[in-house]
Amino acid sequence: MKLLRVGSVGTERPALLDEDNTLRDLSGIVPDIDAGLLADETAFTRVRAAAAAGRLPELAAGTEAGAARVGPPLSRIGKVVCIGLNFHDHARETGAAIPGEPIVFMKAPDTVVGPDDTVLIPRGSEKTDWEVELAVVIGRPARYLASHEEALACVAGYAIANDVSERAFQIERGGQWDKGKNCETFNPLGPWLVTADEVPDPQALTMRLWVNGELRQDGTSADQIFPVAEVVRYLSHFMTLYPGDVISTGTPAGVAMGQPEPKPYLREGDVVELEIAGLGRQRQVMKSA
Amino acid sequence: MKLLRVGSVGTERPALLDEDNTLRDLSGIVPDIDAGLLADETAFTRVRAAAAAGRLPELAAGTEAGAARVGPPLSRIGKVVCIGLNFHDHARETGAAIPGEPIVFMKAPDTVVGPDDTVLIPRGSEKTDWEVELAVVIGRPARYLASHEEALACVAGYAIANDVSERAFQIERGGQWDKGKNCETFNPLGPWLVTADEVPDPQALTMRLWVNGELRQDGTSADQIFPVAEVVRYLSHFMTLYPGDVISTGTPAGVAMGQPEPKPYLREGDVVELEIAGLGRQRQVMKSA
Repeated sequence: MKLLRVGSVGTERPALLDEDNTLRDLSGIVPDIDAGLLADETAFTRVRAAAAAGRLPELAAGTEAGAARVGPPLSRIGKVVCIGLNFHDHARETGAAIPGEPIVFMKAPDTVVGPDDTVLIPRGSEKTDWEVELAVVIGRPARYLASHEEALACVAGYAIANDVSERAFQIERGGQWDKGKNCETFNPLGPWLVTADEVPDPQALTMRLWVNGELRQDGTSADQIFPVAEVVRYLSHFMTLYPGDVISTGTPAGVAMGQPEPKPYLREGDVVELEIAGLGRQRQVMKSA
Repeated sequence: MKLLRVGSVGTERPALLDEDNTLRDLSGIVPDIDAGLLADETAFTRVRAAAAAGRLPELAAGTEAGAARVGPPLSRIGKVVCIGLNFHDHARETGAAIPGEPIVFMKAPDTVVGPDDTVLIPRGSEKTDWEVELAVVIGRPARYLASHEEALACVAGYAIANDVSERAFQIERGGQWDKGKNCETFNPLGPWLVTADEVPDPQALTMRLWVNGELRQDGTSADQIFPVAEVVRYLSHFMTLYPGDVISTGTPAGVAMGQPEPKPYLREGDVVELEIAGLGRQRQVMKSA
């Protein structure tokens, strides 16, 4: 299933994009797409049954849905955990060694915005950069997991994330990466939460990102150093993952930081588009904060 | 005011510790102590008026309150931002240079537990450490603040935090500190949220921590490299702070990592007690996860 949330900021309603590409209103079946829904083992079954029975009303295109904003596909996110330098080609372009174990940092859930929302370039920023990432949405608590099978059983679904990053804040301002990862609007997520059953192999997804129409990232999750199952298993030994948590699993080569000088960092008016096979497409216009 | 939340995990009710040290039930006045309360400018006024008028019922000691667990004094925390190496004496003991600007890392809100709850030593941990910290609770959005006055106007109050840290996970396992800061139960908070009006000078608070009765940390917030007002102002240029966010502002000298070998890292059964002047006292028993 492709689950999404449609409407103005803070008043999005849950929806389903069905196999005919019709938007269906889920608000009669579930209150929202959030941790509560993910933790409720019968909720997905109820949604599927309602969809199969044709009981989901259409969200009128053009009026509500067609022109409506798409929000992040998950509300009340508990935490956003990110994996750094997790693609062989990205590690090479940054001149970093291949990590021996996953590099972990965090974004605050309040950085999450819809897939097509405006992204704000922070005041004083000269090095705002893009990162197309495969986001993993947790559906069951993950704590001291022993195997990749257990890890994948905790995954509810997948989405596209743009792990927007301010490189000077991240690297040149003393200390930890989090400083360049948590500016407001720095985490477009969605458009859809695609349930795990529709992503049979999370390590076989093409991942692309364009800036002003120019293809900048053209990778595949097959190049991940630590695949999704290992990331979830590994993290569960350092923290407990809960339903509604999100893991951004790293970006392939092609970020601005990896380009020759002058590096093409984002400026007001730039348009960033992202795509992951089967997970939809994002489009953000950059604006000064 | 000293605000707190009393009851079992997940069902705490809001309470006030009044000037006679009597616990008063706030559940008739406010639904919870959370971002909604902090953002509601009239809520504190209503609570004060009800207290002054004697309209707050006593929480019966011994039955409900006396024997009851104290939870974290704030629910639905948005994010927990932490400042590293923010005390001159702690920077010295770790052999680190005095930072030129604040070091920023993050803990997930799901690590927050009550002030006297059990703290779990992670599986495989050999280096679980303590850190008494002055926690700042944000009451108004803080975004690109220009002055220390503006910054302090965004502070709703203060609490004690224990920034429990696994040093091997934090430092020896590749990458960023967050890996050793986010184990479950690693953030005892409370007992009280003390409103800012009762803390006239956040830079004049004694901070102490004992392990098994032995005084290990004996510092003062006067030794902070970046005081509370500067921390809030600074952070507001890298992220937006919202009501219900918490900032842990660093720890003074005396952590296990700073001791001679063999360093006295925490073991199952150890008892950690923390105190900050005017903010109450915490007590945690360590247990293996």
